[in-house]
Amino acid sequence: EHGTSNSGGESSKESSRSSTPVLAADRTERLRDKMRRRTESGDHWFSLEFFPPRTASGAVNLVSRFDRMGSGGPLFIDITWHPAGDPGSDKETSSMMIASTAVNYCGLESILHLTCCNQTKEKITGYLSKAKHLGLKNIMALRGDPVGADWEEEEGGFNYATDLVKHIRCEFDDYFDICVAGYPTGHPEADSYDEDLRHLKEKVDAGADFIITQLFFRADTFLKFVRDCRAIGITCPILPGIFPIQGYQSLRQLVKLSKLEVPEEIMRVIEPIKDNDAAIRNYGIEQTVGMCRVLLESGNVPGLHFYTLNREVATMEVLRQLGLWIEDPRRPLPWAVSAHPKRKVEDVRPIFWASRPKSYIYRTQDWDDFPNGRWGNSSSPAFGELNDYYLFYLKSKSSKDALLKMWGEELTSEQSVYKVFTSYIKAQPNCAGHKVMCLPWNDEPLAPETNLMMDELDKVNRRGVLTINSQPTINGKPSDDPIVGWGPPGGYVFQKAYLEFFTSSENVTVLLKVLKKYEPRVNYHIVNVHGQNTTNAHDMQPNAVTWGIFPGREIVQPTVVDPVSFMYWKDEAFALWIEQWAKLYEDESPSRMIIKYIHDNYFLVNLVDNDFPLDNCLWQVIDDMFELLDNPPDDIEALPGDGPVHQETWRRP
Amino acid sequence: EHGTSNSGGESSKESSRSSTPVLAADRTERLRDKMRRRTESGDHWFSLEFFPPRTASGAVNLVSRFDRMGSGGPLFIDITWHPAGDPGSDKETSSMMIASTAVNYCGLESILHLTCCNQTKEKITGYLSKAKHLGLKNIMALRGDPVGADWEEEEGGFNYATDLVKHIRCEFDDYFDICVAGYPTGHPEADSYDEDLRHLKEKVDAGADFIITQLFFRADTFLKFVRDCRAIGITCPILPGIFPIQGYQSLRQLVKLSKLEVPEEIMRVIEPIKDNDAAIRNYGIEQTVGMCRVLLESGNVPGLHFYTLNREVATMEVLRQLGLWIEDPRRPLPWAVSAHPKRKVEDVRPIFWASRPKSYIYRTQDWDDFPNGRWGNSSSPAFGELNDYYLFYLKSKSSKDALLKMWGEELTSEQSVYKVFTSYIKAQPNCAGHKVMCLPWNDEPLAPETNLMMDELDKVNRRGVLTINSQPTINGKPSDDPIVGWGPPGGYVFQKAYLEFFTSSENVTVLLKVLKKYEPRVNYHIVNVHGQNTTNAHDMQPNAVTWGIFPGREIVQPTVVDPVSFMYWKDEAFALWIEQWAKLYEDESPSRMIIKYIHDNYFLVNLVDNDFPLDNCLWQVIDDMFELLDNPPDDIEALPGDGPVHQETWRRP
Repeated sequence: EHGTSNSGGESSKESSRSSTPVLAADRTERLRDKMRRRTESGDHWFSLEFFPPRTASGAVNLVSRFDRMGSGGPLFIDITWHPAGDPGSDKETSSMMIASTAVNYCGLESILHLTCCNQTKEKITGYLSKAKHLGLKNIMALRGDPVGADWEEEEGGFNYATDLVKHIRCEFDDYFDICVAGYPTGHPEADSYDEDLRHLKEKVDAGADFIITQLFFRADTFLKFVRDCRAIGITCPILPGIFPIQGYQSLRQLVKLSKLEVPEEIMRVIEPIKDNDAAIRNYGIEQTVGMCRVLLESGNVPGLHFYTLNREVATMEVLRQLGLWIEDPRRPLPWAVSAHPKRKVEDVRPIFWASRPKSYIYRTQDWDDFPNGRWGNSSSPAFGELNDYYLFYLKSKSSKDALLKMWGEELTSEQSVYKVFTSYIKAQPNCAGHKVMCLPWNDEPLAPETNLMMDELDKVNRRGVLTINSQPTINGKPSDDPIVGWGPPGGYVFQKAYLEFFTSSENVTVLLKVLKKYEPRVNYHIVNVHGQNTTNAHDMQPNAVTWGIFPGREIVQPTVVDPVSFMYWKDEAFALWIEQWAKLYEDESPSRMIIKYIHDNYFLVNLVDNDFPLDNCLWQVIDDMFELLDNPPDDIEALPGDGPVHQETWRRP
Repeated sequence: EHGTSNSGGESSKESSRSSTPVLAADRTERLRDKMRRRTESGDHWFSLEFFPPRTASGAVNLVSRFDRMGSGGPLFIDITWHPAGDPGSDKETSSMMIASTAVNYCGLESILHLTCCNQTKEKITGYLSKAKHLGLKNIMALRGDPVGADWEEEEGGFNYATDLVKHIRCEFDDYFDICVAGYPTGHPEADSYDEDLRHLKEKVDAGADFIITQLFFRADTFLKFVRDCRAIGITCPILPGIFPIQGYQSLRQLVKLSKLEVPEEIMRVIEPIKDNDAAIRNYGIEQTVGMCRVLLESGNVPGLHFYTLNREVATMEVLRQLGLWIEDPRRPLPWAVSAHPKRKVEDVRPIFWASRPKSYIYRTQDWDDFPNGRWGNSSSPAFGELNDYYLFYLKSKSSKDALLKMWGEELTSEQSVYKVFTSYIKAQPNCAGHKVMCLPWNDEPLAPETNLMMDELDKVNRRGVLTINSQPTINGKPSDDPIVGWGPPGGYVFQKAYLEFFTSSENVTVLLKVLKKYEPRVNYHIVNVHGQNTTNAHDMQPNAVTWGIFPGREIVQPTVVDPVSFMYWKDEAFALWIEQWAKLYEDESPSRMIIKYIHDNYFLVNLVDNDFPLDNCLWQVIDDMFELLDNPPDDIEALPGDGPVHQETWRRP
C-alpha cells in the first residue's frame, strides 16, 4: 500500500526474535511470560524508557518516535510518571495518555510507572483502574520523591514502594505485571547497601515480577548487585538500567538527581571535551557498548533496559553495534497490531485504513470483538465517528507551513492537485522545489511494495486518477520475503491486486462501461461524498485480498475489502480533503474552492482483481477508461465537458 | 481421498444450476425462495418423490438411492406419510426417520408428507414439533384417506387439508414451507371440478406456499388446470406430478387407488405388450419425455415433480433425455453438506471423516455451532460416542457374505490383509477372484482424485502401510476443475498433500527417525488404540489442508487436520477393524485374531506436507522409511523382529 503498510514503521515487533514461530503466542502472553520465554531461549533483548512530553507537539513527536524505535523490536517500553504533570489525566501530555497511546496505537508492550508517595489509596486505585481500562497491563511500582520537606511516614499510607506493590496485588490480584526498582549502589536514602537489598527483597516478596535497576557506570557494579540479590533469595529477573552518556549537562543533572557518582575514569575523558556534544555522545556510545558486551557475556543478563532520555540516535547506535536492533523485523501480520488485551485475537481488517491504522483503532475502540465475530455481511460494523482530528496520535507530523510547501501555497486548477499526487508518488520536488513527503491519506512516503508500481501510478495520477491506496498481485511468495512477507517462517503469502482512487464523475461514467468487460474478474465499489454508490459485491460480502498459508496452521486472511466498512471509510477519506487540505487556505479562496470542488464532485473508487495467479489487470482497466475517454465511440452520447469547465465551476461558487 | 470424497455421491447439489454463483445462499434460503429464484432465472429443475421402505435393509438401500439420485441435483425430494407404518416413530422405516435421514445425512432439501385425517391436534402438533427438531423445514399437508367406513366430519377436527394448513400456520407460524396437493381432473370425492378448485384456493389462502399435482397423462390436462387455477386467483407455483409408466401392474394399481382414467391412446399401446416389462418401461420413458417437453415448452412449468416409485432407472433416463440430470454437479464444498438448518453455516470439517460423512454428522449432531465457533485449539470438540453401528444410515451397503468374499473367507497372515488393501486400491480381483469394492473405512471405490496416486498407494500398501485416506497436493487449480474443483466459478482451489494409514509399531519407530529430516515441512500425528500419541502440531492447532479463493469472497478452508478431533477419529478408525472386519469371523478363529492383532498393535498415522507449491514429499517419507528398514545403519539397535514373528504372535493368543 501507499504509506506505512510495508514500511514496518508501525508494527509491533516483539515476536521477531522468538525462537518458536507462533503467530498468536506473542500477542497473548503477558510480559513476564514473554520475558521468561525469551530468556530461556538464550535470546538477548532490549527495552526502552521514555518520559512524557511537555507540550502537545512534543506528544505528536514522541508518538512518531515510538513508531520508529518500536520498529527495532523492543520487548517493552516504559513511561515515567510525572507527579507534577497531572500524570493520570486525559491530557495529551500525561503519563497515562502516552502509555495508552503506546499500547493501543503503536502496538508496544508498555509499562506505566506509578509513584505512591503522598497519594491516597482511592487515588491510586483510581489510576490503576483507569490504566486497566485503557489496556495497560504492566506497572512499575515506585515510591517517588516526597513533595516538599514536610513528608512523614503515614500510618497505613503509602510509605514505600512495597506498600504500593501490596496494594496492587490486593486490589487487582494478578492482573498487572509489576516491576520494581533496584539500586546497584544502594538507595541514596537507605541506611546501608544491605538494608536496601532487604527492602528490595520485601518488594519482590510482596508480588513484584521483575526488577529494573537504576543506572550505573561499571558492569561490575551491576554484576555484584545481581550476585548479592541472588544470595539473599531474590530469584526474579533483574534488568540492568543502561544510560548512554549523551551530553555533559544531562549527565551532571541526572547524577545530581540520582545522587550517583561518576567514576574517575569517565570524568577524566569527559571533562576535556565537555563543550563538544558530538564527541561526548560518541564516547558515550563506545563506553556503553563496551559495558553492555561485558554484561551480556556474563551470562547473567538476558536483556538491557535503556534510559533513552527521549532521544533516538545514541540508543539506536548502541543497539545496532550490539546486534540487538532488528533491521528487518518480521511482521506477524501485514498491518500494525495493537497491544490492547481485547485486540489480541484481531486478525482481519479492512484494507482502507492500511495507511491510517491509528484512525482505524480509534474508530473501533468500542468494539467488544475483533472483528465483530468474523467479517460477515450480516454484522454491520458500527464505526465510531471521526470528528476528533485534534487527537494528537492522529495528527499529521508536519506543520501547516510544511504542508503548504508540499501541497501548494496556491492552487490554480484540479491539475495543480494532480501534480501534488504525482510528486508524492515519484518522491520528487514539486514546482516550488519541495519534496511531497505525505498526503492527507498517507502520512509516510510510498511503501517499498508500492514503489514497484511507481510508473503506473505516476501515469494514472497525471490524468486525474488520484490513487490513495494500492497493492500488487502476489501469488505465493515466501512468508520471509523482505518486502511482502509476513507471518511465521515456512509459509506463503498471497494478495489480490487492489487500487483505490478519487476521480471525477465523468471518468466514473466511462469507467463503469469499461468494468462491464471485466465481470466477474474485477470487483468494484464506487461512491461519492453524498453516499451515491455502485458495487458488484455479492450480497455485500467481504473480499479477502491478503492471505497467508503456514505450516501446521489455519489460513490467515488479515486484509479484506469490505463493502460495509467502505461506506464508513468513505466519510473519513472525503473529510480528509477538507480537514487536512482545504482548511490550509483562506475561506472562499480559489485554492480552498478547488479542493472543495473535488470533495463535492469526485468519486472514491476501489477495484480488486480477483485473478491473483494472472498479471494484474487493474492498470488495463484504467487504460481502457482513458482510451474510451480519448476516443468516444459515436454511439455514446457526448460526455459532459472535461477539465477546464470544472475549473470554471469552482471559481463560481 | 479414498472413497466418496470426490465421487459426488453424497453431495447436496441444489446449487448446481443456480444462476448466481453463491456459496451460502443455497444453503440458507428456504425452499420456496430457492424455487422462486430458480424460476425467475428461467432455469428448469426437478424434484423426486419416494415412499418409506418396508424393511430395515430396504431403508439402507433407500439411503443409497438418495445419495445416487441426489447427485443429479433435485431441488427437493419428498417422503410420503404411511399412516399404517407408524410414520412418526423412530423406526428406521418410518416416514419421519427417512425424511430426517435425507435432510441430515444425505444433505437433501426434503418435504415430509403429513395426513391429518383421524388425528388429534395434539398428535399432529407432536409430529410437527418432532419434524422441526429433526431439522425438517417443509410439510406436504394432506387430508389422507379415512380409515374404515365410519368416518364422519368432526366438529373442530381435521376434516380437510385446509384445516391442517391452518393448524400448521397457527402453531408454527412461518417456520414450515407448506405444500398442498392439486387434482388436475378434480378430486375423486369432490362434487365437481370447480368445487375442487375452490377447495384448492382455500388451502392456498390458508397459507400453502405451492402446489404439487396428482399424476396425469396428458400435458393439456395440466396446462388447463393451471389456467383454471390462475383464473380463480391462485398465484403460487404449481408443480406437475409426473408418473413415468414403469409396468403394467403398477399402473393398474395406481390408477385404481387414485381413481384416474388412463387415456385410450395409452391403453392401446400398453395392452399388447403388458407382459413385457422392458417394453412398457421404454414406452413409459418415451411418453413421459414427450409430455414433459410440451410442459416445459409451454413456459408455465418451471420444474417437474417425479413419482419415482422408489426406482431409479426410468426417472433418471427421462431426466437425462430432458437435459435436467446434472452429470457433473458442481460441489459447493469438497465434502457433502447437510441440509439441517443449524448446519447451514458449517464450512469446515476434519479431513478424517472424508469417507464417513454420515458418521461425522451423527457424532456432531448435538453441537450447537458448526464448527464450535471456528476450529481452534482452545475449544475441545466433544464428539458423540459411536457405538451405534446398527444405525441404518451408517451401515455398509454390502452383506456379510459379500464382505467375506471381498476381504477373505480366511486370513492367514498380516500379508493377507495387505493384499485386501492393494486389491481395493487397484480395483482388481483378489486371489479368490472377487473385486474389493470397499474397505471398513471406505464404503465406495477410490475417488478419481485418489486414482491419480494409485501406483504409489499400491506400492506402500504392499509393504504394510495400510492407507485409508489421502489427497494430493493442489496448487491453485480452477474451481471448476472436473476432478478437484469445488465452490463458485472463477476461483482457485488448493490442497496440502495428506496421507493417513495404519502401520506396525516397528515401522513407526523408523518413521519417527525419518520424520526428523522433514521438520517443519511435514506435520504428523501418530497414535495407537491405547491413545499413546506423538505429534509435532503447534499448540494442538488445526492445519488447513484444503482451501479456496473465490472472486469477491472471504477465503474458505473447508478441511483441516485437527489434532484434537484426530483423537476421537482414532477410536472410530480402530473400532472399524473389529466391528466391520474381525466380527465377520468366528470368535478365536485365526482370521479374527489377525485383525485383532493389527487393531491392538498397529498405529494410525497422519502426515501433512505443508509445502503445497512443491511436489508432494510424503511418498519420499515412506520410501525413506522402507530404505532405513531395509538397510538399518550399524549404530541403530537391531529393530524388533518383523512379519513372521507377529504372525506367530496372533496364533498364540
